[in-house]
Amino acid sequence: MGGVKSKRMPRAVRERQMLDAAVRTFGQRGYRAASMDEIAELAGVSKPLVYLYLNSKESLFTACIRREAKALTEAVRTGVRTELPADRQLWEGLQAFFTHTAENPDGWAVLHLQARTHGEPFAAEVAAMREELVAFVTELIAVAAREAHRDPSLEEGEVAGLGEALVGAAESLADWANATPDVTARQAAATLMNFAWAGLGNLMDGRPWSPPSGTDAPVPALT
Amino acid sequence: MGGVKSKRMPRAVRERQMLDAAVRTFGQRGYRAASMDEIAELAGVSKPLVYLYLNSKESLFTACIRREAKALTEAVRTGVRTELPADRQLWEGLQAFFTHTAENPDGWAVLHLQARTHGEPFAAEVAAMREELVAFVTELIAVAAREAHRDPSLEEGEVAGLGEALVGAAESLADWANATPDVTARQAAATLMNFAWAGLGNLMDGRPWSPPSGTDAPVPALT
Repeated sequence: MGGVKSKRMPRAVRERQMLDAAVRTFGQRGYRAASMDEIAELAGVSKPLVYLYLNSKESLFTACIRREAKALTEAVRTGVRTELPADRQLWEGLQAFFTHTAENPDGWAVLHLQARTHGEPFAAEVAAMREELVAFVTELIAVAAREAHRDPSLEEGEVAGLGEALVGAAESLADWANATPDVTARQAAATLMNFAWAGLGNLMDGRPWSPPSGTDAPVPALT
Repeated sequence: MGGVKSKRMPRAVRERQMLDAAVRTFGQRGYRAASMDEIAELAGVSKPLVYLYLNSKESLFTACIRREAKALTEAVRTGVRTELPADRQLWEGLQAFFTHTAENPDGWAVLHLQARTHGEPFAAEVAAMREELVAFVTELIAVAAREAHRDPSLEEGEVAGLGEALVGAAESLADWANATPDVTARQAAATLMNFAWAGLGNLMDGRPWSPPSGTDAPVPALT
């Protein structure tokens, strides 16, 4: 107590250590294969303490999902300057997304590979995060459509479909980038930006998307 | 025996009934929540018979995945006339994909929502199907790039990334289309074709993809 040197840490710090260990273990070994013994050992605490703090394997996993989902959506939102044109916002958002998933592969595995099983109590946590990302992207597309003034009839349903397609493409590419040596976050973002914005037809004709010159480092084009 | 009317059916027919019941139950209720009792009852057979034929819940689920994966990849492959240009092949492939997933929503749920949990013995079954679809799409893109003669340096890694993006977008849209009232397979295919081929940039400017006139019914465009 008091000034005496002790092994005591604030609860928040201990909890963070447990969650770090849990995300790593769940992400690498899967929900079912992961053991609480393993997680406690990696966190450097006793198993009873993990149960005391986080109650059960299930609620520990739910806490992991919640933390990783929040971190990912925040990374994307703070990575985007909303005063930019839609395509630049999308480019920044994709870079933030792939940078975050590359730097947190275990967190991404928890969110995308582990937590999606239908019927689990935690599926709803991931669904909420995904909906937030889809809503964010869909709004960007809707704004871009309004700005272009060309297609006021771009229907809500169609825009929603485009948002779903884009998020699905990003999820798939994040798995691929994390599993493929030498694919950087920037390359993954550039691949998707080219695909999503310029389209395959333009890529084939050698017309990739590129940001306005002088305002950003060149995009690694598909050439 | 012989010509006597009996309740006996060929094993293949019974197995198909069991698999039909299993796909429906797993797809709608999830792997864990689904019970063998439920599946046997829906198939109109006894539970011991299900075990006799298919051994365990796990191997029944694996058999479901294998059947549904084969049906989906065959639907896509037979839906594409390989003598057509790449964009038309893609259009036909996407229509076949979304038609199949719309007509077999439980099979699609088994493949995409139920079977992807990392570490499960059946994850490899789905991964194999997905790789086949990615390879198919990636080859289409590579052929299109070669045909265009514009970009011989379109690198293998980049093309692979585009294939992953496209398949991820298709998976996401299939979930969305099956969960959204009044979205037809053709609309889902058109949305993805516009996205993938024309790109958002062109869509914003009112230049959607469209097949050569006169060779196909008009694509429901994003207008």
